[in-house]
Amino acid sequence: MISGISAAGTPVRQASLRQHNLRLVLAQIALSSPQSRADVAAATGLTRATVSTLVDDLVSGRLLREVSPAPRSGAGRPGVGLVLNDADGPAGLGLEINVDYLAACVLDLAGAVRHREIQPGDRRGDSPARVLAAAATLAERARLAAEDQGLTIAGTAVAVPGLVSPDGTIRLAPNLGWRDVDASGFTPGPLTVENEANLAAIGELHHGSPAGSASFLYVSGEIGIGAGIVLHGSLFRGARGWSGELGHVAVDPDGPACRCGAHGCLEQYAGQEALLPPGSTVGDLAARASSGDAAALDRLSAAASALGVTIAGVINLLDVDTVVLGGIYAPLAPWLSPGIEAQIASRVLTAGWSPVHVRPAGLGSDAAVVGAAGAIIRAVHEEPAAWLVETSPGTP
Amino acid sequence: MISGISAAGTPVRQASLRQHNLRLVLAQIALSSPQSRADVAAATGLTRATVSTLVDDLVSGRLLREVSPAPRSGAGRPGVGLVLNDADGPAGLGLEINVDYLAACVLDLAGAVRHREIQPGDRRGDSPARVLAAAATLAERARLAAEDQGLTIAGTAVAVPGLVSPDGTIRLAPNLGWRDVDASGFTPGPLTVENEANLAAIGELHHGSPAGSASFLYVSGEIGIGAGIVLHGSLFRGARGWSGELGHVAVDPDGPACRCGAHGCLEQYAGQEALLPPGSTVGDLAARASSGDAAALDRLSAAASALGVTIAGVINLLDVDTVVLGGIYAPLAPWLSPGIEAQIASRVLTAGWSPVHVRPAGLGSDAAVVGAAGAIIRAVHEEPAAWLVETSPGTP
Repeated sequence: MISGISAAGTPVRQASLRQHNLRLVLAQIALSSPQSRADVAAATGLTRATVSTLVDDLVSGRLLREVSPAPRSGAGRPGVGLVLNDADGPAGLGLEINVDYLAACVLDLAGAVRHREIQPGDRRGDSPARVLAAAATLAERARLAAEDQGLTIAGTAVAVPGLVSPDGTIRLAPNLGWRDVDASGFTPGPLTVENEANLAAIGELHHGSPAGSASFLYVSGEIGIGAGIVLHGSLFRGARGWSGELGHVAVDPDGPACRCGAHGCLEQYAGQEALLPPGSTVGDLAARASSGDAAALDRLSAAASALGVTIAGVINLLDVDTVVLGGIYAPLAPWLSPGIEAQIASRVLTAGWSPVHVRPAGLGSDAAVVGAAGAIIRAVHEEPAAWLVETSPGTP
Repeated sequence: MISGISAAGTPVRQASLRQHNLRLVLAQIALSSPQSRADVAAATGLTRATVSTLVDDLVSGRLLREVSPAPRSGAGRPGVGLVLNDADGPAGLGLEINVDYLAACVLDLAGAVRHREIQPGDRRGDSPARVLAAAATLAERARLAAEDQGLTIAGTAVAVPGLVSPDGTIRLAPNLGWRDVDASGFTPGPLTVENEANLAAIGELHHGSPAGSASFLYVSGEIGIGAGIVLHGSLFRGARGWSGELGHVAVDPDGPACRCGAHGCLEQYAGQEALLPPGSTVGDLAARASSGDAAALDRLSAAASALGVTIAGVINLLDVDTVVLGGIYAPLAPWLSPGIEAQIASRVLTAGWSPVHVRPAGLGSDAAVVGAAGAIIRAVHEEPAAWLVETSPGTP
């Protein structure tokens, strides 16, 4: 929805036209660059005069920068080339708080990773305050690394394995043992707190898939199991932002008790602790499966079957055509996919004429933290006018 | 999305402003009427001159009509009152093809039912051609009834219990035994074919609930079980329009065989044939449950439990706050709701602080056919410019 043009019904005004057209010009240059002002005018249908005014604003606001002349297109002398400002423009800071690691990542306006840090360690014994303080330290190091490269952090997004309220309160993160933890101000600057599977799904969406076309279920295997639902290129958050609790969908209503209080939840069949023998790692399990170890293959097959039953239910309900296996499921995909595909083939009503594709996450286990940083960058692309107002020297 | 203003990026043009403002004026009068031109200008922020031009177009296009002076508001003489044209304006024709009945319904622009017909009869032995011919006869009677009242049918929407392609092909309706049935031209005029649970959910959305705010799962119990998913006031169709196959979500992966080829589908536990003793009706079951018959209560309790496990999974996944029981579940809601609510309370991760409301459908078993007719009416409200073009005397 274009800001200022609401279906509920305000008339279209001049300011929203400018916002729309700023976004349009930025999107055009993001699509391929360098381009000249004339190229942008030709591609967007805007007049050259309008494009020039908009580009001037985007250059002075450090969203675009000018480079040596663009390749000649058509008659006349070649214009100055325009590219996304990855030199001294805005950057997105992504953080991930998970049960057994913390991570930070900085992306520039063009989506390139400019800094990354992962800090392993089981956090289940630590207080929320202690974990947030450690995350704040990672964030501070990332901010300094960005500034050293000339970038300005436009905002921070934090991925957490749980349910988050719009005000930044982590309502429930069962596997961290957190309930009603206020994460709204633990690090300075604009801050967004969001479910890790949602951010991982966004990360995956913008990693190599053409924006706007993809519809998929991103399944995030960690200690818990989360899901991010992407439809027609947009994340589907649910009515209150609490969608995707795939780990607590019942595989067998009379199955084993779950930490959440219910019985037979998927997490009990395919979560990290059900899948890995005590003390072992994902790498160990993959290595044993590669060597044909029967016990390892049995564990993977049982988890795949439970995942497949649940995922088939999701596809019957939501009609997505792709399943992306993320988190610990990404490296285990060679052994999990066949069992999941078998359940889909036998249980999804439309599977006969409309195949469902199961694949590992392209970003592997980095998807959530890269997705978090990417969410900040995309917000700048979607509302460039907001960033311009913020950086305008005339604004108090 | 406003037609002509696409996020993919065309500039905003004058024509889309007019379309937007026509819709705005129509929506304002739909909100409360009669209103004068001055009232509409005050409420929308448009100038009186602009409103007058738009209203003239809407009156000559038979979307609005003028009535005796509106109640005086403010200074000056009262203006002519404007109301939605329910006298000789467009009407929506809804049809429903179901396993054991056919139905037709006409709604006027103000959403009032102007004609309704239901034709009971088991259709499982009949060929698709025969069923479509019978539906076409119902449609023709409905059209004549509308024309007798001065109305013009703007389009027809048909609700079917199955998966429909965008081209109007019914890909699969398992309980009718239909596969790849072309329903695109069986009755004259613009025709939309759509899943019955989706149309029922739309019908329910616009029956008494404030548009744009509701998020709910509509569960349609018939021979099969379908679902319509409404989020923030919009129907959620899935990537290919085949969402909502709730009846084929597994309750127990090792449960009884289903007509679809899989095992343990919800339909086997809570579909009409599992719920009702052979030869009996929903009325019989409700009567026996009312009188405390233990066997009837056991049947209802078992179905409620299976429905509850599946619905809890949907809420974990999609985060809706309301479940609407439609079709045969509407009259059985007093006995089904407690069992469904118990499963939600124990299985939905957010249930503790975010209650989920289970209620019967307000339109009862008419929801699909009323929703079908309503879909046509809403299309006129959302794109009044399209209707004006169609009815303009100057258009070839």
